[in-house]
Amino acid sequence: MSKINQLTDYMQENNLSMVFTDNPDTVAYYTNYFSDPHERLLALVVFLDETVLLVPKLEENESRELSSADRVIGYKDEENPWQALQQIIKAQNVLVESVGIETDQLVVDRYYKLRGLLPAAVFHSITSEIQNQKVIKTTEEIDIMHEAGKLADRALEVGMSTLRTGVTETEVVAAIEYDMKKQGVSDMSFDTMVLFGDHAASPHGTPGDRQLKPGELVLFDLGVVWKGYTSDVTRTVAYGDVDDDIKEIYSVVLKAQLSAQDNVRPGMTAEKLDESARNVIEEAGHGDYFTHRLGHGLGQSVHEYPNISPGSETVLKSGMCFSIEPGIYIENKAGIRIEDCVTLTDKGAVSFTSTSKEWTVIPVK
Amino acid sequence: MSKINQLTDYMQENNLSMVFTDNPDTVAYYTNYFSDPHERLLALVVFLDETVLLVPKLEENESRELSSADRVIGYKDEENPWQALQQIIKAQNVLVESVGIETDQLVVDRYYKLRGLLPAAVFHSITSEIQNQKVIKTTEEIDIMHEAGKLADRALEVGMSTLRTGVTETEVVAAIEYDMKKQGVSDMSFDTMVLFGDHAASPHGTPGDRQLKPGELVLFDLGVVWKGYTSDVTRTVAYGDVDDDIKEIYSVVLKAQLSAQDNVRPGMTAEKLDESARNVIEEAGHGDYFTHRLGHGLGQSVHEYPNISPGSETVLKSGMCFSIEPGIYIENKAGIRIEDCVTLTDKGAVSFTSTSKEWTVIPVK
Repeated sequence: MSKINQLTDYMQENNLSMVFTDNPDTVAYYTNYFSDPHERLLALVVFLDETVLLVPKLEENESRELSSADRVIGYKDEENPWQALQQIIKAQNVLVESVGIETDQLVVDRYYKLRGLLPAAVFHSITSEIQNQKVIKTTEEIDIMHEAGKLADRALEVGMSTLRTGVTETEVVAAIEYDMKKQGVSDMSFDTMVLFGDHAASPHGTPGDRQLKPGELVLFDLGVVWKGYTSDVTRTVAYGDVDDDIKEIYSVVLKAQLSAQDNVRPGMTAEKLDESARNVIEEAGHGDYFTHRLGHGLGQSVHEYPNISPGSETVLKSGMCFSIEPGIYIENKAGIRIEDCVTLTDKGAVSFTSTSKEWTVIPVK
Repeated sequence: MSKINQLTDYMQENNLSMVFTDNPDTVAYYTNYFSDPHERLLALVVFLDETVLLVPKLEENESRELSSADRVIGYKDEENPWQALQQIIKAQNVLVESVGIETDQLVVDRYYKLRGLLPAAVFHSITSEIQNQKVIKTTEEIDIMHEAGKLADRALEVGMSTLRTGVTETEVVAAIEYDMKKQGVSDMSFDTMVLFGDHAASPHGTPGDRQLKPGELVLFDLGVVWKGYTSDVTRTVAYGDVDDDIKEIYSVVLKAQLSAQDNVRPGMTAEKLDESARNVIEEAGHGDYFTHRLGHGLGQSVHEYPNISPGSETVLKSGMCFSIEPGIYIENKAGIRIEDCVTLTDKGAVSFTSTSKEWTVIPVK
């Protein structure tokens, strides 16, 4: 069934006469047209028998060419897009009694604008339904995510080959992103992270002028956006010889990562998966230093449903795609994280990335 | 007056006992701590005598070090941040009767979560007030924006020096961003745009594999994020000799751009400024091909208040910063846009960028 038919079926079953979304990812999901219109309104309006895309005038031609929407309406900067929306609704000649909206995306101002246009309508959150539709990836989506994963593997290779004494974190980031741009990648899926030594002890650190020294760890966390889908991978490697206790911590993180990745199966809950990795780290006495969830879903966006964390009762299903990324962060000492993103199949996890996770030492240059 | 005092003064005058914002730019504006927490909650809660930053655990240390908030509270992934917020409110021992929120930023789900915590409170939009506080830049902010503008000038220089027959749009983008990363720029303020020939006729086109040919125009639209503030500049140059009618169109765009930039003064309305450029293009008979507003405010974000467009009655004031970017786009032929971002002073506009706007021909290589 096509994606848009899944949505209209849901609308029919739930007596929704209209769905409104201005979330660029959702618009792209149902129409194949992605655009971030910044503060301008770009909305997909779905009725049972017609989908209409309302776009800023300067995207009208492109979206008409690329989107699968039945109709594209452009509005100029000096026009009021909400009046245009009112016309679109009027032209349907249907009584709009109940409207589906993405309450985790729609901002309050726009919500009240919509309510102003449809004062008698009841508004329902379709956040979970949209999540549920998006979370099971199609074969086409998974194929693209494998391509995005291969590019991330290549980015890691470029990054590791750039390491030399005195290079800065920022220079390594620049080399990686330059190579990716030349591969046709227009966006990284998030700010590329390259952190040296104890700088990696902050799991959300920002690369800077710090220069690489022999005996330090290097943490890479990166991914690309490719054909509208994301990849995400983390590797931590040694630059020259490092202390044995750091190698020991690495082996704990790797054991935790593998214990989750090798054993995940459909039917398991997300919290159980988180626990399988967390237990390994806790048993090794480092539980306090694993300060985040085990993973997150990804697809069009690099952080999406499901949430792989303690307390998350989501039942994992075949076709879901998510990260498995345990880490141990000890302030003033080291940060180690290992991450693959996988798609779940009936036989287990299939990773989008294949860069070795074994303890890796890059020779000092 | 400090920025946070401006906000608490406003709260006092308007009987607001609390302000809640989860907008990363606003959090950074009032606390000097910027972080994009993706789908996690990172919120600034302002009371009359205390500011509290609620952050994901993994940002707790960094935000305590870097932010100017009076108190930082971290929550773990398995904890409910709204319960943490409830504790924060309770600990104040004040009756929270009215709450200020940014209705153009806050999503519906979080709005209802807040209302659930404070069922008796009345919620007020402080969107305009926050815009009004942010729109007049301080000397420190303007200094940083000049630095961001200089980096954009450098990026243009790198881009122009990369032009040669057969180079692709994407390769030029890669060269520009590589150089910027090496300058310590961690983010461009938007996807760098380099478009050749009639590809530039789409004002929001995306760089791709297209190869440069002699006799084509090249449109650069780019900017950087620097110390939390953005730059934005557009230049259109010729690669080798181009047709005279294209040169003629260029001169119209330049005349429109200068007529706005040279004559803008405090007290003028935004629509009047838009008109001053639009008239030039209309008189030359190209009015239908100038399909967007003249400009937009910028600061922490590359698109913010004020809106320089027909119908915008905002009165321009000293200290405001915005773009002036007329363009003419003729399908299958050419796209020409010229843009400087400026700060308004009592004596007129001061540009953040200084790359020549005169007709420029890059010799064929």
